[in-house]
Amino acid sequence: MEYLQPDKLRIGVLGGGQLGRMMIQSAINLNLQICCLDPDPNAPCKHIANEFSVGSLNDYDTVYAFGKDKDVITIEIENVNTDALKQLQSEGKKVFPQPEVVELIKDKGLQKQFYQQHHIPTPSFVLVSGKSEIAQHAAAFPFFQKMRTGGYDGKGVVKLSDPQQLDQAFDVPSVLESLVDFEKEISVIVARNEKGESSCFPSVECAFNPEANLVEFLFSPADISNDVESQAIQIATTVAEKLGIIGLLAVELFVTKDGKVLVNEIAPRPHNSGHHTIEGNVTSQFEQHLRAITNMPLGNTDIVRPAVMINLLGEKGYEGAARYEGLDAALSESGVYVHLYGKAITKPFRKMGHITVADKELTVATAKARQLKDTVKIIS
Amino acid sequence: MEYLQPDKLRIGVLGGGQLGRMMIQSAINLNLQICCLDPDPNAPCKHIANEFSVGSLNDYDTVYAFGKDKDVITIEIENVNTDALKQLQSEGKKVFPQPEVVELIKDKGLQKQFYQQHHIPTPSFVLVSGKSEIAQHAAAFPFFQKMRTGGYDGKGVVKLSDPQQLDQAFDVPSVLESLVDFEKEISVIVARNEKGESSCFPSVECAFNPEANLVEFLFSPADISNDVESQAIQIATTVAEKLGIIGLLAVELFVTKDGKVLVNEIAPRPHNSGHHTIEGNVTSQFEQHLRAITNMPLGNTDIVRPAVMINLLGEKGYEGAARYEGLDAALSESGVYVHLYGKAITKPFRKMGHITVADKELTVATAKARQLKDTVKIIS
Repeated sequence: MEYLQPDKLRIGVLGGGQLGRMMIQSAINLNLQICCLDPDPNAPCKHIANEFSVGSLNDYDTVYAFGKDKDVITIEIENVNTDALKQLQSEGKKVFPQPEVVELIKDKGLQKQFYQQHHIPTPSFVLVSGKSEIAQHAAAFPFFQKMRTGGYDGKGVVKLSDPQQLDQAFDVPSVLESLVDFEKEISVIVARNEKGESSCFPSVECAFNPEANLVEFLFSPADISNDVESQAIQIATTVAEKLGIIGLLAVELFVTKDGKVLVNEIAPRPHNSGHHTIEGNVTSQFEQHLRAITNMPLGNTDIVRPAVMINLLGEKGYEGAARYEGLDAALSESGVYVHLYGKAITKPFRKMGHITVADKELTVATAKARQLKDTVKIIS
Repeated sequence: MEYLQPDKLRIGVLGGGQLGRMMIQSAINLNLQICCLDPDPNAPCKHIANEFSVGSLNDYDTVYAFGKDKDVITIEIENVNTDALKQLQSEGKKVFPQPEVVELIKDKGLQKQFYQQHHIPTPSFVLVSGKSEIAQHAAAFPFFQKMRTGGYDGKGVVKLSDPQQLDQAFDVPSVLESLVDFEKEISVIVARNEKGESSCFPSVECAFNPEANLVEFLFSPADISNDVESQAIQIATTVAEKLGIIGLLAVELFVTKDGKVLVNEIAPRPHNSGHHTIEGNVTSQFEQHLRAITNMPLGNTDIVRPAVMINLLGEKGYEGAARYEGLDAALSESGVYVHLYGKAITKPFRKMGHITVADKELTVATAKARQLKDTVKIIS
């Protein structure tokens, strides 16, 4: 087409959770039509998508039928029927990220082999088909066992320190990954469009909740040397280019105590480690994803204000209709951005929302965020 | 209630245009449920409101029925049935802005009398009931004739320079307002909540399209002295307090060549002169309005980045299905935020969208905005 006509584009999103929801908030600016498919009839996108369809993301016919009348199909979760996506792609639909990329990434075994093949630094690993094979790797203890498929948000990962813990192992095809004595974990989100242009957001630093293995705090910018920053950007760009991905790729990295950067995991979509970009960067990760998959120019990723993000996780011991404590206090502070995902039911550690605190000074934002972490609770 | 539970609040908005649309984008963050009523079945809020109802905003029964199951009722246009709103208010619904305030403001005659009564500086005026009375005020030429009710976006206003132009006058109840030899026009948006707290956004400077009498450029911050800024803030705060308004009030002001500040007009809702706050200020006007009408703490209004806004008006000579020229170029520039309102049909000077350009330096933002003004066109 001669000129970009964004309002003519119908975009199908597989998944209607919080990532789709924030994608929609951004898509409204360009009047992109967003249609979501989700198995949950009350998913966060229900009321705000141009069209909201209920159905399985893993069923070939459902995914294929959903994609048939869209111009571009994307995902907000990797666990989708890629055969249907391949068929749609073969019929000329734009499917970004590409189904092959999704297949590679959703199998942590293939993911690790990909790093190896392309000399991308990553913790060493072996692949096993099930529990019985693990014992053969006694020399490798301690390690993480990661299920090759189906894990998410820290689920499907177990630390095995010695052979006595084998009863805790998963009996499924897995990656056994050596422990890395890292100093910190960082994340780089890279975008790539059909023209092959790519652009990285500056690194953010991730602090995890040890119990839930979920991001608890994000700090933007990361407190790292210029050398580590450029290693991280270079690695993220290489991974995106070798994959040939179109769309966003979140690259989670370990920074070792001697200043090396290793890839931990990647995700081919907007990511929890990019939520701070909504208020903190010139372009948000959600707009960047939409720009990338519709072949628009990529946006500037510079930091406007340092920012700290905290996830609002369902409080331990509460399950049921969500109730919020402490939002008044949060909204009384300057530069505090509350994002509730519209999930009616809370469960322990369920991602119910997030708060970004932006300030001219990262130290000020950090202090406020740490306080809010103790103030805002999601109970039932 | 003990704690703020924003997701339990159902907010009814009279009008489903671009102001409602941007209000919804903001409301999603707090999972506030926004329901819109609009006579146009394809109004900009159609797809993204929690509920979208089609009906007349001027019909008592329609407005009353719409408000019955909402917790808070607000507006994005003044021309609504205030009798229905009064009935809803008498039944215990929160109606913000209050119906009495809307009635006062939507009659420019009452508005002017209100300024007079409260010693709020405003251009001098006389009220007339129709054309035949205008001739009695020959000494007042030249002046603006403004229809007391029904005008919007520059419609309903005519400049009459001498008695020979009387044939161009409206034959309806009107305000004849003396011309002010102003240096610039500025706008202050003030928010006030039920606790009586109020907060102003810093002044912005408005440059109008002389042909359409619509805002063409907004500059934030306004290039004015501290004295003018504090007069403006004080006047806006006084108007809001004397009205007792709850919600947003946009106060458009003249700055005279000798540094005096006079009220031109006011609007009891989010306003075109506050669109830059989405990217330019700590809190956007839309979030501020939602905070004010739900009695949340008001947000900080500081400028994060200087910003220039341009309205995307339908190009002269084109009427029909909208097509966009130059968006690619706009999106190639850093810090350029395109907002399309999702209106399928363009007409000359119809507000189809806006672009905000934010930058550390206002001069840089201004240069980019002036260029984009010539690049981005909405045709058919």
